[in-house]
Amino acid sequence: MLRPGQTIGILGGGQLGRMLAMAAARLGLRTHVFEPDPEAPAAQTANAHMIAAYEDQGALAAFAEAVDVVTLEFENVPAAAVAFLEARVPVRPGAAVLAVAQDRVAEKTLAAQAGAQTAPFVAVDRLEDAQAGLKVVGLPAMLKTRRAGYDGKGQRKITSEAELAAAVTALGTKDLILEGFVPFIAEFSVIGARGLDGAIALFDPPVNVHRNHILDTSTVPSGLGPAIEEKGRAVTRLLLDRLNYVGVMAVEFFALADGAVLVNEIAPRVHNSGHWTLEACIVSQFEQQIRAVAGWPLGDPARHSNAVMTNLIGAEAEHYAAIAAEPGAALHLYGKKEIRAGRKMGHITRLTGPAR
Amino acid sequence: MLRPGQTIGILGGGQLGRMLAMAAARLGLRTHVFEPDPEAPAAQTANAHMIAAYEDQGALAAFAEAVDVVTLEFENVPAAAVAFLEARVPVRPGAAVLAVAQDRVAEKTLAAQAGAQTAPFVAVDRLEDAQAGLKVVGLPAMLKTRRAGYDGKGQRKITSEAELAAAVTALGTKDLILEGFVPFIAEFSVIGARGLDGAIALFDPPVNVHRNHILDTSTVPSGLGPAIEEKGRAVTRLLLDRLNYVGVMAVEFFALADGAVLVNEIAPRVHNSGHWTLEACIVSQFEQQIRAVAGWPLGDPARHSNAVMTNLIGAEAEHYAAIAAEPGAALHLYGKKEIRAGRKMGHITRLTGPAR
Repeated sequence: MLRPGQTIGILGGGQLGRMLAMAAARLGLRTHVFEPDPEAPAAQTANAHMIAAYEDQGALAAFAEAVDVVTLEFENVPAAAVAFLEARVPVRPGAAVLAVAQDRVAEKTLAAQAGAQTAPFVAVDRLEDAQAGLKVVGLPAMLKTRRAGYDGKGQRKITSEAELAAAVTALGTKDLILEGFVPFIAEFSVIGARGLDGAIALFDPPVNVHRNHILDTSTVPSGLGPAIEEKGRAVTRLLLDRLNYVGVMAVEFFALADGAVLVNEIAPRVHNSGHWTLEACIVSQFEQQIRAVAGWPLGDPARHSNAVMTNLIGAEAEHYAAIAAEPGAALHLYGKKEIRAGRKMGHITRLTGPAR
Repeated sequence: MLRPGQTIGILGGGQLGRMLAMAAARLGLRTHVFEPDPEAPAAQTANAHMIAAYEDQGALAAFAEAVDVVTLEFENVPAAAVAFLEARVPVRPGAAVLAVAQDRVAEKTLAAQAGAQTAPFVAVDRLEDAQAGLKVVGLPAMLKTRRAGYDGKGQRKITSEAELAAAVTALGTKDLILEGFVPFIAEFSVIGARGLDGAIALFDPPVNVHRNHILDTSTVPSGLGPAIEEKGRAVTRLLLDRLNYVGVMAVEFFALADGAVLVNEIAPRVHNSGHWTLEACIVSQFEQQIRAVAGWPLGDPARHSNAVMTNLIGAEAEHYAAIAAEPGAALHLYGKKEIRAGRKMGHITRLTGPAR
């Protein structure tokens, strides 16, 4: 168990790292961010910032010396960097977990092995795989890169066989995945944590609405009912245990009309759909991650209020003055200098009454 | 109105500054702390730290250049430093307010001028003043330094005339105040804010319990009833307006058995008795201070939950592991390296149900 004053290293410097650093500070723990961008949002709230590339082994070695444990705020940290660090200092979650989470095929395979349903999928490393796969997964289908995609980047919707060849070429022909299209009625997520002692704590599942492939709102309670929510919770518990996981993990689910629940994605970190925990819970997802990786007891995930989280994307952040004037709205801005289309600039949490 | 990315200067580097810096970061505003101690709690969460003495005019000038507005987290900043800064950059609240708040006689005089009751008091600059004053204020009485006292430091209880001479000498003979002892039934405080536009917002008053002259707990609702609470609110509104105040101000009150409400102290800053607002309100006292001094609209001070805040003094902070394991408890540690008797090391907020 880290003592107050000890230091947590964070790989990545975005808004998730920014909020992790503040959660650590609440507990009297220090943070050290590893991130190439000198102006990164997390660097503004952390105690220290190593400005270096993930390939810089000298910087990685110095970072390992300076911290007591390492965690991460985005999963696409190069595997070599994580392996290098893991030889020197505990990394939570570690390289084995990242190898799964970085690869959509490995992720879905794991989910299936854990007894969870997923959309039908086929690994694609040449056009022929995709052509054969289409017969398995049906039309329409989604063709995606296996690695490094997020917020709708690196994916194409396939509505006819004729579109397939061009899409395969556009995405690089290999290391792709073809997924069947799932007629879901809702998307929801479970943000769960597993402590160093194996204890598990799950936040209430929000229902999530996307706009232009980017999360727009997360709402608790989800309104999906206890049966669907419990299926998501059960899968999340199973995945946390199977991976011998330490930290916060987010599992995104599709809910189908017949009550089935399918795993969509697994994120080995705090998640945009859990931001409402900052206002609606006594311990947020960010503090939960800090507690887990620091070897502290997990916090109480109980929710005292209902909440709606709304992202501020691109120019929406320019309305900060009007949002600040709205009673009952908690405004979060991430300290990003430049507003760009599709960029997550901040979010709003609105509490909508005592928890029910 | 400051834009996101602009910088608020904070005079003082303690835990109040630490929580102010985090509140600013939530809004995408930057902070720059002026504080001689390189290891100060606030320096760990602020964007920048000027390590210098308040007498260092070169450092003050550079600080004024680097920030867009200045506020403070403790009232005993030397008046000359505040005046120097105020000639260069807006200081909120400003030198005129500090001159009142730094001096117990001026503070009580202002309260009386605003129509508020206080304990009887007499300014003391020589032994004869104290001897004559004792006939006015009666026994027992409190002899205090006019300036720079806090947490019971710089004060003596006088229970007989014979004790007076030694106490006057011990506290330095001049710049003292002799106060009548007030048989209060409870202490409470009102944390209020006034915006640049003159708008006022008051948090619900907590009832405060002290132990060894240091705040032990603050509890909302206070249980003192609406009549007493409203007297405190009315005085606070009056003081904020009379001082043309910008920022958060805390007024400590005594409640007497007959329903009278007396002003005890005025703090021109966020206050220990308002820490529960971090968990029980959508906008905390810290964010409220940031909003006011940045020229933003004040936040909604409504309370969604009942709460009890308990300070962690000295060695009590060593129990952090047990506190972290308590469901429903929010633990705050201030990043202070050394535990000392009487030192505020952190606090706990416990939510005790939906607001009533």
